[in-house]
Amino acid sequence: MVKLILFIAFLFSIMANAQTRSNMLIRISEIEVYPEYLEEYLQFAKNVGATSVKEEEGVVCIYPMVQQRDSCQIRILEIYRDMDAYKSHIQTPHFQTYKQGTLHMVKKLDLVDMYPLNPYRMNEIFLKLKNE
Amino acid sequence: MVKLILFIAFLFSIMANAQTRSNMLIRISEIEVYPEYLEEYLQFAKNVGATSVKEEEGVVCIYPMVQQRDSCQIRILEIYRDMDAYKSHIQTPHFQTYKQGTLHMVKKLDLVDMYPLNPYRMNEIFLKLKNE
Repeated sequence: MVKLILFIAFLFSIMANAQTRSNMLIRISEIEVYPEYLEEYLQFAKNVGATSVKEEEGVVCIYPMVQQRDSCQIRILEIYRDMDAYKSHIQTPHFQTYKQGTLHMVKKLDLVDMYPLNPYRMNEIFLKLKNE
Repeated sequence: MVKLILFIAFLFSIMANAQTRSNMLIRISEIEVYPEYLEEYLQFAKNVGATSVKEEEGVVCIYPMVQQRDSCQIRILEIYRDMDAYKSHIQTPHFQTYKQGTLHMVKKLDLVDMYPLNPYRMNEIFLKLKNE
């Protein structure tokens, strides 16, 4: 029982930590695309990611990846500064072009929201990418 | 048939692109942890991620996340400069401490290798994190 209470307290501490120390919205979008549309879909994804990061201050990261073992499985790491940034993002013309243009290409879509384990280490971690 | 050939050519172009323009190893590790070990596992994961990024030049990013809907589901975005950096990483004492120390905590482990869609955009994308 003590273990359970400690465990629940720990979970709350993770959540509180993620929420109070960072309002960022972090998501892994899991997308399965119909094979016949893969090329076209990836072009859309590439465009919307690049435009969003470039033009929207609150879009911190949109990083699309393709599974090596199944190229119809796309994963996108998305980081928004906060919920407002996300809400504003999904109303932009470039997001709407992507969304409406790819609806028939997507077989499965699962938006999986995440807590970062080290919210404050993010800068430090990704800063290394600058030099790659 | 023409469509199929074009599609295969396209896949090869993605792979060639990812391989020639970047030797980075990009992976999403999908980990399920037994609930009774979650707290302890996360502490191990936090430590090994932070130490690796800090001490190993070739470890570009280790970014652990916990699913909001199921906190036993962990996802770690891992980026290594190249295969040598990865091989060297898994031989470090801090990785071995994590690996051996958490073996009994892990219910499922799937190492999912990925191609980045925009290998050269990474710097630009993650650079924004610096200011968050």
